[in-house]
Amino acid sequence: MSNPGQSLQQMRTAAPLVHNITNFVAMNPMANVLLAIGASPAMVHAREEVSDFAGLAQALTVNIGTADDAWGAAMIDAAEVMNDAGRPWVLDPVGVGATPFRQQLSRRLIALRPTVIRGNASEILALAGRPSAARGVDGGDGVDAAMDAAQGLARETGGVVAASGAVDYVTDGADGYCVANGHPLMARVTAMGCSLNGVIAAFCVDQPPLEATVAALASYGLAGETAATTAQGPGSFQPAFLDALHDQTPDALDAGARISAT
Amino acid sequence: MSNPGQSLQQMRTAAPLVHNITNFVAMNPMANVLLAIGASPAMVHAREEVSDFAGLAQALTVNIGTADDAWGAAMIDAAEVMNDAGRPWVLDPVGVGATPFRQQLSRRLIALRPTVIRGNASEILALAGRPSAARGVDGGDGVDAAMDAAQGLARETGGVVAASGAVDYVTDGADGYCVANGHPLMARVTAMGCSLNGVIAAFCVDQPPLEATVAALASYGLAGETAATTAQGPGSFQPAFLDALHDQTPDALDAGARISAT
Amino acid sequence: MSNPGQSLQQMRTAAPLVHNITNFVAMNPMANVLLAIGASPAMVHAREEVSDFAGLAQALTVNIGTADDAWGAAMIDAAEVMNDAGRPWVLDPVGVGATPFRQQLSRRLIALRPTVIRGNASEILALAGRPSAARGVDGGDGVDAAMDAAQGLARETGGVVAASGAVDYVTDGADGYCVANGHPLMARVTAMGCSLNGVIAAFCVDQPPLEATVAALASYGLAGETAATTAQGPGSFQPAFLDALHDQTPDALDAGARISAT
Repeated sequence: MSNPGQSLQQMRTAAPLVHNITNFVAMNPMANVLLAIGASPAMVHAREEVSDFAGLAQALTVNIGTADDAWGAAMIDAAEVMNDAGRPWVLDPVGVGATPFRQQLSRRLIALRPTVIRGNASEILALAGRPSAARGVDGGDGVDAAMDAAQGLARETGGVVAASGAVDYVTDGADGYCVANGHPLMARVTAMGCSLNGVIAAFCVDQPPLEATVAALASYGLAGETAATTAQGPGSFQPAFLDALHDQTPDALDAGARISAT
Repeated sequence: MSNPGQSLQQMRTAAPLVHNITNFVAMNPMANVLLAIGASPAMVHAREEVSDFAGLAQALTVNIGTADDAWGAAMIDAAEVMNDAGRPWVLDPVGVGATPFRQQLSRRLIALRPTVIRGNASEILALAGRPSAARGVDGGDGVDAAMDAAQGLARETGGVVAASGAVDYVTDGADGYCVANGHPLMARVTAMGCSLNGVIAAFCVDQPPLEATVAALASYGLAGETAATTAQGPGSFQPAFLDALHDQTPDALDAGARISAT
Repeated sequence: MSNPGQSLQQMRTAAPLVHNITNFVAMNPMANVLLAIGASPAMVHAREEVSDFAGLAQALTVNIGTADDAWGAAMIDAAEVMNDAGRPWVLDPVGVGATPFRQQLSRRLIALRPTVIRGNASEILALAGRPSAARGVDGGDGVDAAMDAAQGLARETGGVVAASGAVDYVTDGADGYCVANGHPLMARVTAMGCSLNGVIAAFCVDQPPLEATVAALASYGLAGETAATTAQGPGSFQPAFLDALHDQTPDALDAGARISAT
């Protein structure tokens, strides 16, 4: 595992343009997260232009949280552009277990072999066709329960799978890492997982996806820890979190990252 | 009137999944409000899945703020699921007096007999076909002017009607309560009324709608008062308000609620 | 140049209803910006009602950031209502250089002769058909490079063109002003430019567009300077910025505005 601080530094130097097709709840905080950490976000989903825009971007994220058939088609268009260009893209199968529509759309996107799939443990379990304790879009399962499912899914796609939670688990189907950074207040703020997708995508630009994903998770979780030291609750946590992402140095990330091989 | 602190406690114990079909401006703050107070929000509107999702939820909110014909159909689908299941749903007729489209959609939704209708006084007047001083989506009428209209509307639907403002008025057509909690800064932050719909819906899960709505209004207004003690303006009010919702104890709500029967 | 403080005071007294057809990222912060400074925002884009709503508004903003064909048609409908009524409207050609769809939609909107066009320097250059260093929706050009393009565009439309950046340039094709207010943190927060459109539109109500635009830019930039004195980063900047807009007095604006004729 290369050091995560170097990965952060490389991302900031590249300052990649990250194209996001994400849900309406996440669009604003995700753009702010990407700006705070040093990337350049754009939210573009109209089929009239989504392929043109994807052609300009260094990375893509796709999130099914408020998708419909038209958005699903745009997601597939954009993912195909990234695949043709050999650029990374991240899939977030939000609430995939909740409706047949989400299951079907997620399956179509997984068939395009995303560079990284990130979900909570319940979503990873549901993708793998296993029972989960999810309810709506909130997961109810621990990451331990999802490790086998994550490995199987990574082997199916040839990509990286990250199950995020109190402890995150990241695997490419062969190697696996746990990332223990984070804070419970992150679960009381909406779209924190969605916004993380953009950070993962930004780190993956010209970096090996497994290491880049691990570094992104550590950076994000550590910023949450930093924010929690001054936050009074989930409201004051949000500006403090953006400040922490903005101020995080590579050295602080190397010192604070809690990454372990499994 | 049972005590509002008990109602808050019961809501937090249930931590209900609240399905929201709300406007784009409100989606993010409403999700954060529901997470802060202890419920589980989901924003789902695509007709491809809205009925499936409604079937999973304990309560629903419907807000016409940025609706179109397709969303209107999804709202009706979801409301019918809740009616069939005997679960509560809340209608917010945002800016109903502004356009014929809003009037027609609101009338179709009212015919489905929402558990609670919540609007500002101008919206309640407009729903009842009476003249109002509204302009755009901002109300211009006081709650006093809307009491008769609210009672008539409640008798028409068999549900609860809440006219919110500096003082809120809540009625089921027979009994009525005034809730005097709140702070003027709440009117300088967007989507505060929209987000309140979710709190009302969460309180209504397995609770009598009149009492639950009154308790929700008191809780929300009291959090506004708490936030205003530290806020420097409408910007710093927002994180402080989420912190206050998160930190509010049942005892503090019982002590601070200003509820009176009318 | 009349004093900007008087322009701010006149806007607050009018408290105009500003109708915004803007992108999903900007809807929430833009509504909060308008409420904080003292105007009344509404976000309405459905073709089912957009013309009816425009008829109620004192000013309109149109932003192509997340448009599609249906939204484009709604933008044209609403702009025509404003033109017929002789009311001001502001066009923001977000990322116009990024895709053919954006170029074509922008050209159709420019043909309707917006009262004010506001973009970053890269967008103004792209509108004028000149090469720019833009990437995605972030500009890469300085305002100096866009002055000629802005003047030409203003002469084409008969309106005002504002190229915003570290220093803003505003022209009606004959006279020109530079506004040097602002702070670098504003570029690390999403939708700051988009939200500014609403402030410009509000100032333009019953005020001469060139002077009103200059005053709006000074007011907005000065609020950014005020916020930066207490912000710890781009997260804490946001609530501080809304507080600063809310608290800004006409005298403080006159004292702090850095406007120069060119």
